[in-house]
Amino acid sequence: MTPIPIHDPDDPRVADYRQIRERDLTGRRGLFVAEGAVVLNVLASPQSRCRAVSALIAEQRIETLRPVLERLAAPVYAAGQGVMDAVAGFPIHRGILALGEKPAEPDLADLLTAAPGDGLVVAVCGVGNHDNMGGIFRNAAAFGAHAVLLDAHCCDPLYRKAIRVSVGAALRTPFVTGLDPLAMLDGLEAAGFSLLALSPSGEQSLSEVRPGGRAALILGAEGPGLSPAVMARCRTVAIPMAGGFDSLNVAATSAVALHQMRFG
Amino acid sequence: MTPIPIHDPDDPRVADYRQIRERDLTGRRGLFVAEGAVVLNVLASPQSRCRAVSALIAEQRIETLRPVLERLAAPVYAAGQGVMDAVAGFPIHRGILALGEKPAEPDLADLLTAAPGDGLVVAVCGVGNHDNMGGIFRNAAAFGAHAVLLDAHCCDPLYRKAIRVSVGAALRTPFVTGLDPLAMLDGLEAAGFSLLALSPSGEQSLSEVRPGGRAALILGAEGPGLSPAVMARCRTVAIPMAGGFDSLNVAATSAVALHQMRFG
Repeated sequence: MTPIPIHDPDDPRVADYRQIRERDLTGRRGLFVAEGAVVLNVLASPQSRCRAVSALIAEQRIETLRPVLERLAAPVYAAGQGVMDAVAGFPIHRGILALGEKPAEPDLADLLTAAPGDGLVVAVCGVGNHDNMGGIFRNAAAFGAHAVLLDAHCCDPLYRKAIRVSVGAALRTPFVTGLDPLAMLDGLEAAGFSLLALSPSGEQSLSEVRPGGRAALILGAEGPGLSPAVMARCRTVAIPMAGGFDSLNVAATSAVALHQMRFG
Repeated sequence: MTPIPIHDPDDPRVADYRQIRERDLTGRRGLFVAEGAVVLNVLASPQSRCRAVSALIAEQRIETLRPVLERLAAPVYAAGQGVMDAVAGFPIHRGILALGEKPAEPDLADLLTAAPGDGLVVAVCGVGNHDNMGGIFRNAAAFGAHAVLLDAHCCDPLYRKAIRVSVGAALRTPFVTGLDPLAMLDGLEAAGFSLLALSPSGEQSLSEVRPGGRAALILGAEGPGLSPAVMARCRTVAIPMAGGFDSLNVAATSAVALHQMRFG
């Protein structure tokens, strides 16, 4: 790995890193931006489902990052902090950016058929907040979920901030996006998954759930929650809350539920 | 409640709202800033431990907020969006700010003695991230924890962002700050609390924990974790993770553990 020095923020070799915030909003043709050492490490690991395209690293970080940059198998551009900030459009304090290629999404039926006999899947409807999306992926990976399924109203798990909050889990755990919620349930049922919908109005208490077989955790956004059509198809469970207080955040809910489904 | 119109960003009556971000870093003499409708609603509720000093509301929001502003029992300043943004120093999209008075902290021994027989307390060491702090308070409130204890290395739970992430729980749940970790454990033990420390190196699995009696959940920061001196005094438990993946976020950990301690 020989770093390629970049002295000009307008160098065409770093064009895809330019004005990162604005680009995040409009997309970047099948690429995503990874930032920070934790995520870079996942991108360079054998567990990553995503190919690295390049890295843009602050000069003073190159030596300590050398082992992970070797594993990345992609060009590494080295820039002074000033050039790096000018390219990105805001201060990149950690001095670590990388571009990756969004992977092709697996076929839903194939993905679910390949799950182990006690496989867990997290299915998400309408979660548009990148912090929550990242948290859900982090928790899914922590509890060894086989896959994450997202309906068409979910945000992109390969958005920069979602990847960062996921501590790289979004690069590892297979996912399918843009699904119709009922088609998602059809696919899960066809593959033998039991359907567990979390909702404050759930009929049973989560603590009654015991591990067993393939199971899918169905989550909706805070506020609107899951649609009646989805709820009607699932076993519905609630996490009992202390009197009068707002419900849990959806990412925290996923952690509590996955722990119960795995170890309860 | 008659709103007081503010036309000049330099009006001395809104001086405490000026340049909110910079002030957040230096403190504001025993006051805190609440933002957004959810937090305003908690501040105005009987459950709030904090007295409201005033509110600064975008003119077009006044009518829909009238019931909660009546309950606030404090002056309400109404400003155009431009004036409001100029005062705060950045765009206040939701048009809702309020100032509150930090409450006097309860005496640790008194607070713990007043806990119910099955009371839960969350004790936190070294958590300096406001998102995590807010998440811990939100989860503590959701599971009806009696109090939150913070050591001297924790960030301020009444920092604007921590309050917002807590969805106002930081204004409701009693807490004590600046504690020495071992003195905290002394106080908990003296009040009959069993001590449960969460750590990736914990000796037992969290799923073996059953509800019973007064219990304290001891949490450390991601990364450094809890000190050996603290761990040695506690029953230590771990949440088993899928092979090779990073541990859970500390706020997610608090949700999983509180659910288990309450309903496991």
